[in-house]
Amino acid sequence: MSELQFPPGAAFIDGGFAKIEDAKISVLDWGFLRSDATYDVVHVWKGRFFRLDAHLDRFLSSAEKLRMKLPYDRAQIAEILAELVERTGFEDAYVEMIVTRGVSPTFSRDPRDAINRFIAFAIPFGWILRPEEREEGLALAVSEIPRIPPESVDPTVKNYHWLDLVMGMFDAYEQGARTCILTDGQGNITEGPGFNVFVVKDGKVATPMRGVLHGITRQASILLLQELQVPVSARPVSLHELREADEVFATSTAGGVMPVTKIGAHIVAGGKPGPITGRLIEAYWAAHTRDDGWSVAVKDVARGNLRG
Amino acid sequence: MSELQFPPGAAFIDGGFAKIEDAKISVLDWGFLRSDATYDVVHVWKGRFFRLDAHLDRFLSSAEKLRMKLPYDRAQIAEILAELVERTGFEDAYVEMIVTRGVSPTFSRDPRDAINRFIAFAIPFGWILRPEEREEGLALAVSEIPRIPPESVDPTVKNYHWLDLVMGMFDAYEQGARTCILTDGQGNITEGPGFNVFVVKDGKVATPMRGVLHGITRQASILLLQELQVPVSARPVSLHELREADEVFATSTAGGVMPVTKIGAHIVAGGKPGPITGRLIEAYWAAHTRDDGWSVAVKDVARGNLRG
Repeated sequence: MSELQFPPGAAFIDGGFAKIEDAKISVLDWGFLRSDATYDVVHVWKGRFFRLDAHLDRFLSSAEKLRMKLPYDRAQIAEILAELVERTGFEDAYVEMIVTRGVSPTFSRDPRDAINRFIAFAIPFGWILRPEEREEGLALAVSEIPRIPPESVDPTVKNYHWLDLVMGMFDAYEQGARTCILTDGQGNITEGPGFNVFVVKDGKVATPMRGVLHGITRQASILLLQELQVPVSARPVSLHELREADEVFATSTAGGVMPVTKIGAHIVAGGKPGPITGRLIEAYWAAHTRDDGWSVAVKDVARGNLRG
Repeated sequence: MSELQFPPGAAFIDGGFAKIEDAKISVLDWGFLRSDATYDVVHVWKGRFFRLDAHLDRFLSSAEKLRMKLPYDRAQIAEILAELVERTGFEDAYVEMIVTRGVSPTFSRDPRDAINRFIAFAIPFGWILRPEEREEGLALAVSEIPRIPPESVDPTVKNYHWLDLVMGMFDAYEQGARTCILTDGQGNITEGPGFNVFVVKDGKVATPMRGVLHGITRQASILLLQELQVPVSARPVSLHELREADEVFATSTAGGVMPVTKIGAHIVAGGKPGPITGRLIEAYWAAHTRDDGWSVAVKDVARGNLRG
């Protein structure tokens, strides 16, 4: 990979800090050979972690559901993430924490024998949208490929089982869209590669309940809409509702709340971000400086104070 | 991972040969972060590749279905695999070839921008069964977790989406079994972690047709049963048929044809490998020295002669 310009950043691997280009795992790690891993991504905006508690809660819960043992406790993980950001000097960053099954010392096939591995890295804040799309909105296409069902792989455990989403992205490119949304194979929408989706109709907001990651930005959006006194519910959302919606938006740590203005050939909300989407985007970014548990300064976390 | 004793072996990565412990991929490779990869595993027995053509066919087809470009052609890949085996000096080996999506030089999220990576490694021949189980047979348990359906992820593209299988293995351990078999969620069996399953009833053999990897050992078993004039079909196989079977066996490159003698608490065929399973095992190992396209000497492949 000598031809690559790695993004600036820092990593934590094998118990120590490393350059991002040196953050590598063995091809024998079950985290690669079986995608037997879970992860979480928290972002830092203007020197503050956003919703760090919620990300740590989910990460610890995901590891437990996969019966993995983290070599660090919650406070230690928080300090590692903060130190990673401090090492990069980034004001805005994207910080990923990972636990893989690892390998067993004898290379047995039994996952109970494996020594689980913790990895983390910080890179510049990433956007799903290109800069111009933040104003214009995102062009989505619906792929015929159904999302891996929750009965097979628990989507509340954030995971790397993305081949359905990746093939859906190729479908979307062929339809001239920027990214995809998958269905549940039964006429309801689920999620896209790295984001949840919301629809707005007659002033009411809904987002799929089942077969999707319970995104932290999704949860933040639900809380903020409630504060804005906009009715919002998590329930099955049909493809028909997606196409008939007054407004559609996507939520992701990589970009926040993003207006969707096109679904296939169908123009949503006259091709412009709608009013509820606009109010939510404003509330979302304003929440980044709230200190009532929504955000915490990186420097405070680095000093062992998760609550700032 | 300094505490690990890596298995003896050799690897090919980043365009050159390397020690197995140095075969590492960047944590930023989509092959890891999205499990956006495909692979194949061929084995060598007594200095001969078994069904190399079939494995190469499937690997090239899998890469194409995922719209990946291999940096080497079929003949070059075969030579790399043979050189890996020659470097280890193994008479019996397990040789894995992998292509990952890689990363794009700009780290864009678009898979079309990524430079696909080829990796291969050779390690000692691996068995799913412990030595004593080769005589006694394998104890399986049925997990309630349904296998990822073929509509979501094409199982004919050999892939690392194994969290359903891994969680099924934990279910199996709780039932006192050695490994698991998953269903399709509709009363039919599919496959286990790394193996296909066959049932025998009244002298007729059947194996699931849909929602399973089209294993090379599965295909070899079908061909060998046909040569033995045992009726065999690929069709839906119900859980009921599994439990009522006269004989059950599993097939995998990692171990060949393996008798299954226990399913949960249920003893199959009196707890001993059945007669058709026995005949197939004999034919399977005999086929390893056949030179009618079934096997080819490693040294011939290393000299560029895939047909021996």
